Amino acid sequence: MAKPCVFCGVADGTGAASMVAESPLALAFMDLRQPNPGHVLVVPRAHVRDLLDLDQAAGHEMMDLIRRTARAVHEAFKPDGVNVYQSTGKLAGQEVFHLHFHVLPRKKGDRLFRAYPYAPPPPPSSREELQRQAALIRAELAAIR
Amino acid sequence: MAKPCVFCGVADGTGAASMVAESPLALAFMDLRQPNPGHVLVVPRAHVRDLLDLDQAAGHEMMDLIRRTARAVHEAFKPDGVNVYQSTGKLAGQEVFHLHFHVLPRKKGDRLFRAYPYAPPPPPSSREELQRQAALIRAELAAIR
Repeated sequence: MAKPCVFCGVADGTGAASMVAESPLALAFMDLRQPNPGHVLVVPRAHVRDLLDLDQAAGHEMMDLIRRTARAVHEAFKPDGVNVYQSTGKLAGQEVFHLHFHVLPRKKGDRLFRAYPYAPPPPPSSREELQRQAALIRAELAAIR
Repeated sequence: MAKPCVFCGVADGTGAASMVAESPLALAFMDLRQPNPGHVLVVPRAHVRDLLDLDQAAGHEMMDLIRRTARAVHEAFKPDGVNVYQSTGKLAGQEVFHLHFHVLPRKKGDRLFRAYPYAPPPPPSSREELQRQAALIRAELAAIR
């Protein structure tokens, strides 16, 4: 039998969590790891594996909680900044396969979160290459609601 | 005079961009840097400095574009994963002070994006500490719509 999903356990109240906010389709609760105080997870109440399977209604409630929680954390803990991040797929760093967005307060010198941790960002791509990529994405978007 | 905002220029059509999708309150276009093909930015059409100033309506449209773009990029470029991230404040890595979420496709071995780049994540906090933090955040949330 598959291991039960820990975030489904939080959603149905059978798993321990320090809840921050709830709405009909989404939840916000404390991450177990607190590299800085105020590290919160925002998840859909229903089991959704990752961002690729999220629907519009749950997405809106998740964004409401991300936005409101970021402000509340900023008020409560006065960090020097905030990162929001989400990982879809093991290769991207996903560890729990129930969609979750992190709200991570940042403090000077904390050495957390880098988009380009091990090398400088690449130089800008040519406009021709960017137009080529945009056309490929637009072609797929036409079929995605 | 302050330097004009580059993303406001994209929004009003005076700045160059390779557009992926537009809605009344939000836009998606190619990031100039393409560490992997399909790196897209999602921004509010109006000037919003960071996540702390985002309103509900624009937030919903941004999440719609984040969700749909992630799926389209996944179809178009078949990456091994996807990260979504956002930086509020210079200390958190913000470079353009017009709110933007990144949709970043990931490829095996690309050495991009790490939440804990330079040290292992901290051990879990005590339930007592998590409850203390959650109560502080809930107290602030009461006043935040």
